[in-house]
Parts: sequence; C-alpha cells; structure tokens
Amino acid sequence: MTTALLDTLRQIVGAAHVLTHEDPTTDLTAYEQDWRKRATGRALAVVRPASTAEVAAVVKACAAARTAIIPQGGNTGLSVGGTPDASGTQVVLSLTRMNAVRAIDRDNLTMTVEAGCILQTLQETADKEGLLFPLSLAAEGSCTIGGNLGTNAGGTQVVRYGNARELCLGLEVVTPQGEVWDGLSGLRKDNTGYDLRNLFIGSEGTLGVITAATMKLYPQPAAQLTAWAAVPDMAAAVRLLGLAHQHLGAGLTGFEVMGQFALSLVIKHMPQLRVPFAGLKGAPPYYVLLENSDSESEQHARERFETLLELAFEDGCVLDAVVAESLAQAHELWHIRESIPLAQAEEGLNIKHDISIAASRIPAFVEHTDALLAREIAGVRLVNFGHLGDGNLHYNVQAPEGGDARDFLATQEDRVNQLVYDAVAQFGGSFSAEHGVGQLKADKLAQYKSPVALSMMRAIKQALDPQGLMNPGCILQKQ
Amino acid sequence: MTTALLDTLRQIVGAAHVLTHEDPTTDLTAYEQDWRKRATGRALAVVRPASTAEVAAVVKACAAARTAIIPQGGNTGLSVGGTPDASGTQVVLSLTRMNAVRAIDRDNLTMTVEAGCILQTLQETADKEGLLFPLSLAAEGSCTIGGNLGTNAGGTQVVRYGNARELCLGLEVVTPQGEVWDGLSGLRKDNTGYDLRNLFIGSEGTLGVITAATMKLYPQPAAQLTAWAAVPDMAAAVRLLGLAHQHLGAGLTGFEVMGQFALSLVIKHMPQLRVPFAGLKGAPPYYVLLENSDSESEQHARERFETLLELAFEDGCVLDAVVAESLAQAHELWHIRESIPLAQAEEGLNIKHDISIAASRIPAFVEHTDALLAREIAGVRLVNFGHLGDGNLHYNVQAPEGGDARDFLATQEDRVNQLVYDAVAQFGGSFSAEHGVGQLKADKLAQYKSPVALSMMRAIKQALDPQGLMNPGCILQKQ
Repeated sequence: MTTALLDTLRQIVGAAHVLTHEDPTTDLTAYEQDWRKRATGRALAVVRPASTAEVAAVVKACAAARTAIIPQGGNTGLSVGGTPDASGTQVVLSLTRMNAVRAIDRDNLTMTVEAGCILQTLQETADKEGLLFPLSLAAEGSCTIGGNLGTNAGGTQVVRYGNARELCLGLEVVTPQGEVWDGLSGLRKDNTGYDLRNLFIGSEGTLGVITAATMKLYPQPAAQLTAWAAVPDMAAAVRLLGLAHQHLGAGLTGFEVMGQFALSLVIKHMPQLRVPFAGLKGAPPYYVLLENSDSESEQHARERFETLLELAFEDGCVLDAVVAESLAQAHELWHIRESIPLAQAEEGLNIKHDISIAASRIPAFVEHTDALLAREIAGVRLVNFGHLGDGNLHYNVQAPEGGDARDFLATQEDRVNQLVYDAVAQFGGSFSAEHGVGQLKADKLAQYKSPVALSMMRAIKQALDPQGLMNPGCILQKQ
Repeated sequence: MTTALLDTLRQIVGAAHVLTHEDPTTDLTAYEQDWRKRATGRALAVVRPASTAEVAAVVKACAAARTAIIPQGGNTGLSVGGTPDASGTQVVLSLTRMNAVRAIDRDNLTMTVEAGCILQTLQETADKEGLLFPLSLAAEGSCTIGGNLGTNAGGTQVVRYGNARELCLGLEVVTPQGEVWDGLSGLRKDNTGYDLRNLFIGSEGTLGVITAATMKLYPQPAAQLTAWAAVPDMAAAVRLLGLAHQHLGAGLTGFEVMGQFALSLVIKHMPQLRVPFAGLKGAPPYYVLLENSDSESEQHARERFETLLELAFEDGCVLDAVVAESLAQAHELWHIRESIPLAQAEEGLNIKHDISIAASRIPAFVEHTDALLAREIAGVRLVNFGHLGDGNLHYNVQAPEGGDARDFLATQEDRVNQLVYDAVAQFGGSFSAEHGVGQLKADKLAQYKSPVALSMMRAIKQALDPQGLMNPGCILQKQ
C-alpha cells in the first residue's frame, strides 16, 4: 500500500520530487527537523509539487491511502507546526517549488503569489514596482508566504499594517478532499458568506493547504525615519505609544520595546554595535525604537518626530532620545533590536515566550511577573523585548548567570512556562501572539483556551477534515 | 409545547419583553418587516433579553424546543437577514436592550460594547474621549454594532480603516447550544487556534448570536478636509485613487465616486443643494469626493490636497476641483453624496446593487455593463455611485423615464440582476460587497459562489448549528 502511494506520488510530481529514506544518500533533516531543533520526525516521503493541480492530486492520493500530510513552507516556524511525527508514515508536502509571482495589479494595489514564494522575494518584487509589501520579520530570507499565512505571522510593522491576516485579500486552497477552492480575489469588500479566508489563515495547515494568495500592496513612503528613546519605565513606554499614535497617526510603522538586560547582552556579545544610552551604570530600564514612515518628505518626517519627542520630554515619558541622521544609522538601530535573539543565544540556552496583553495592562503585567519569577526562581534573568505597539512581548527567560543552562531548562522550563502563562491568562493575554500553536503549544491551547472555543474548533476541524489527515496533532491535540 | 416555550421565555426575560400576537394591540411590524419592506414575516414571539446570560438561556430554551431563532439588531439591513418567515413559528431575538458600553481602554485604544449599542452612540462615546470610532454608514443613527458585525458592514471610511471586521478585536458569542464564548479581547495579536472571531463576523446570525464586541479606537485626526473633483471618465477616477494613495498615504479616509446621472437626480429632487460642476450641459460623467484626515493640522492637510490636485491636473485625471473651505462646506459635499439614495427613491422604485470589483477592472466593467444594459433594456437609467476606494459600487438601475416603475421592476428586476451579476462574475467581482447575503441573495450565493466554498460553508454550518435553528434560510438556502 505504501509502495503504491509512493508510486502514485512519483507519477504526480515526478520521481525527482518524491524524497524518501529508501535512498540512503538522501538527507531529509531539513524537512524533518524544525528550525529551533525542538523536534525531529521521520517522514514517509517529502513530496514537492510544482502546481496547484499537483498539490490537489497529492492530497487526493494521500486521502485515498489515509496518509497524513504535513504542509511545509520554509520550515522556519517557531512552534513545530511543520514537522512530521516519528512514525515514518506521514508525507511532508513541501510547497517551495510553487514560487511564482502570478500577477501584480498596480491600480488595485495587490499581488497574487504562490505559497512557496520567499517573503523577501515578495518585498523585492513590490519594491521594483515602486510599491511596498510591508510584512517583515527575522526569517524573511527563507520563510514563505504560505507559511506566513498558515501561522498568521506578525513582525515589526504590525502596528501600522497588521498581521499577515490583514494583508491578505484572497486565498487559493486545496481542501483535505483534494478539491481546489479558488478564493483568490483582489476584493477589499466581499460579504458573500462565511469568511473562509480568515479560517484558513492561522490554521497552520490543519484544514487544508494554502497554495496561493492575493496580498495587499501599499505605496512606498517618501521617507522613513527611526528614533531611539530611553524611557523611565514600562508605563512611560505605553504613554509614549499613545503620544506616537496621536502625533504620527498612521506614520507610526514601528514601535519596539527593549529591556536594559536584553540590550546588555547585545553590548556583551556584539561589542561592535553602539547601543545608545544602555551601556552605562544606572542606565534606564527600557528603550523604545520608533519608526515614522512619511508620505511626504524626510524633512517632514523629521519635524513630526521632533514635535513628538518634545511632547514626550515634557510628559516625562522619554528621558533621552536620538533620531537617526542617515539610513545607515537607522539600519544600525534596527540591527541592535534584531540582534537580541542572537545575543541571547550567545549567552546560552533560554526559554522563549511570545505573549500578548492589552497595552494598558502591560506595565502591571511586567511588574507582577518580574517579581513573581524573581521570587520563585533564584537568579532568573529576564530578556524582555518585543512589539509593544501590538502588545506583543518576547518575555524570555535566561538561565541564572554561571549556572548550567541545559540543566536549568531541563528542570525549570515547565515551571517557568506555567508561571508566565498563568500570569498572562490572569492579565487577559495570549500565550501565542504571533508564532502560532504548532505541536509545541498544543497542550497550552488545551489548558488555556476556553472549552467553548476549543469545542467549536474541534467541530470545524471534524467538519472540514473528517479523516483527520491534515497536520494531525498541530493546534488541536490528537484525541 | 409553544405555550410552554413562551412561558419559559417570559420567565427568562420578563413578560414585558416577550412580545406576541396573542395581545392584539401589539404591533410587531417593526420586527417582522425588513427595512426596505422587501419581506414581511410573522414571528411566534419577539424576545428582548437584557444580558448575555438571558440570551444564553433564551437560546437554550429555543434549542430544546427546536424553535428557530432570528437574531436582530436595529433591523436596518438591506438584504433581509433579520426577518422571520411567515410560519409564525420563529422567535425574533432582538438585542436592542443589550446596549451598555462595558469599558473604554484609552491606552489600548479599544472599547468593549454590547451588541445592541447604536453605531452613532459608539461614535459619540469615542468622541467624548477624544478618540475616533471610524465605522460610519447611512443607518448609523439606528443600526447596532451587533448587526454591523453580523453583516460585516462597510461604509465610507473603509479605504483607511477597513470594514467592521477589521475594526473588531474580540467577540462574545452565544452558541447555538446556548453556551457563552467569551472571546472578548483587546489583543492585536493572538494566534491561538482557528479564527472564530472572523467566522462569526459576517455570518449574519446563522452560527450564533454576537452579544458583545471589543472594537478598535483611533486617535482623532487633527484636521479633516474634503475635496470634490470632476473627472473625465472612470479610468481617470481610478488614476486619481492611485495618486491619492501615494500622496496622502493613510490620510486618505474617503474616496467616493458619483456618476453624473446620480447627481442629476440630487439636483432635480433636492434643488436646495449646490452640486459643484455637475448641473451643466456637457458636464463630466464622474465626480469624486475625497477626504483627507491629517494628524497634524488643517493647514498641512490643505497643502497635501493642493499638492495632490496639482499632480492630478497635470496628469489630466482631474478636470476641475474644489476643496471645502469650512466644516460646513465639507458637510454639504458629503450631504450631496449621501442624498443620492434618497434622490433615487424620489425618482421612483429602482433596483439596487452592491457590487465590488478590483479597482483596476472597474473602468472596463462599467464600460461593458453600461453598454450591455443600454442594449438589452430600452431606456434603462444607471445610477452609479459608491466607495471606489474599496472597489465597491452601488450600481443601481432606475426604471426608464416616464414609464411605470412598479411594472418595470416586476418584469425586469430578475433580468437586470442576472445581467449585472453575470458581468460582475465575469470581471471577478462580488455580488455583495457590504450588504451581506441575507435571505434576499441566498439564491445568488448558490448561483455565483464556487461549489467548493459552498460545500465548506455548509459543513461549517452543520458542525456549529447541527439543528439548523440559527437564522435558517439566511446566507445558505434551506436544503
């Protein structure tokens, strides 16, 4: 039966695009292991279709053989949402060969792209047209738009342009039955029945396979300026956010917060980077990176920033600030922000969180949870940074200095997670803001999501994928 | 059995809030007839709960009695989505007593409101806080936010702020089983499982009852300016839209198009209104109303408009333009736009459409469909206007001059609809942009939606409402 399925798959996509362990020289690690190396599975085969019709045929063949499918894009997910289990019975469906930009519609400000397009390619394609595709995140050089949509990826410009969800106007999807839903549309308004598009976005390949999407484009801003501000506490950072919304309007395209300890790791491990204000003794506890995108001119952007920062100084929510004088300086400031995860890795193993909380409650949450962790776990070090403009913190935990980080994680990770996620729940937040659930957090979903919501999700899964073959165990635990 | 149910309902909400025909002095027309008087039903009862717990109890009681429920807000819908059938067996669940503003969170820029809140009340509540709730549409004085969300209402500011969907961060819903899902959340990022919020938004009460919502707020703009431009053709209007996106950026909060004949009806029936440029012989065929919201100042808004209009004159896409000198003038210009439906009504019965098409294809669609209708239906008069910024046209059809409009509708409405909707489908558009499907267009959904999408919708309906008691016949036809 397995041999028959593999033969069928080879007929559909060509033998060269069905990778199996039958050939001992084939290394499937890149498909079988997740990005953070949290899980390694064993696939029956990795199948690489080149067209929607091929995807549909593959899904039909697998459905007939009752074989589970794990859709996979760039395999850069952070929640183990695209990794096969260890059984050797699941097919990894890699979308990376489906990488055509099908159409760009300048007047409609849209582009239609296949699921396997690399995010950076989309940014560059838009740029060549003098337009902006604003989705931007650390893995943009290797993640795919299909994966971005499957996980509803966020990133650094969400405060202005929204998540991947808000940037999508239409989808093409292969259903678990191997049928093609052509929901590609450049329509900004379409109220004809249930919102299938948003149901598939963020469903992490558990309801079907996204094969193409129509995405929004924006005019490029005339100028983009970056500022860096030291703030006295998290409450001040939230006040600054309010002022920035008011005085920059939709010009506010980035609002990142960074804790002093997070930056001290950058200073320690990337000594070549000049980190404003943060390196001194008695340095302020938090820093904010602001980006102002202006449809007019650089001079105008600079004036707006000056007005904002003057008001912020008066208010007291900013202690010190610098506005980048050049694009190079702006890149340097962003580079500091983006170096935090790497600096953390250099410092040693750590526990990552991707939480969101209403901005108004973040100061109290941080105060409460910082104290809680300090009390409960001796020597714990908090690497707190993230997209404050969206209420999204990467509230990460570094092992105590000098201790054995591996040992710390082995003994403390579950406890740390429970303390943090319980606090998040207490403050009405989410345990997964932008990284999705995957297999990694399926137990957290079962624990923290309302039973009513979970039961509706299970009903929907059962309705659309009654055989349970699409990415089983991802999001919803196997029953 | 019916008596038992009515007794139970009276126990839940109080006898005063269960309205039935048993009392001959009670007039239920306001609940049993839709806004446009396209349909009149007969309800078993109109039930008016005052709290989420009461809604849940009502739904449970109806579910136990296998009695269908028609959720209803302000009953201003345009697609007959909240009207009971003629059987006298359905319960109208009116949410208008649930009208509390539960919370305003300034730092998080959100407000949590009950489903029965009037849209205008929400606008005014935000305004008092110095904030903006941007959803705005003709029925705002009587429609409710629950209805707005149930139908994913659009309106005049969608080009900047999106539809009702994009303004909502969380919902509270009573499921068809009478359970309460507390999905209220002020979170801008939350990737924990399937997007139930967006599934309920736009489902027109067929999957459950929205009882409350957390909605986004925005800073109020410092200034808002309105301009009126005459353009040589629809293609020029689309070019002007592109220029406006580029030069106003997110300042562009309104972009309405109006055909010359639509304005001529305003001139004819509201002679007190001064309609710029449109009243003369040889007047240009289309007019655009632009709104520029500026986070800086009125002077800055004016400068940006001047820059834009200069470029537009150079391009040739604007023939003549005027920028309102005062708020009163701006209101006057908007009032002209908003008077078109009334002027149409004064002119006589007509056939309304609410279609959307990618902006890039609108000029070709209009040229094609104008010619088609002129050829197929002698003397037909087209009242074309709408939210061009969102690709949404109210491409309405007025009976031939001097003829009997009632007779024209009786004999030609189906044919006109088919010609228009076939053309819409040919151009990749939607037959319902912002008004929803309701009972009125359920046959159109069956006709024009892809069978794959329809079958997924039916599976979802069956999964969440297996008894089929929530607003039966709305969106999906009874099987």
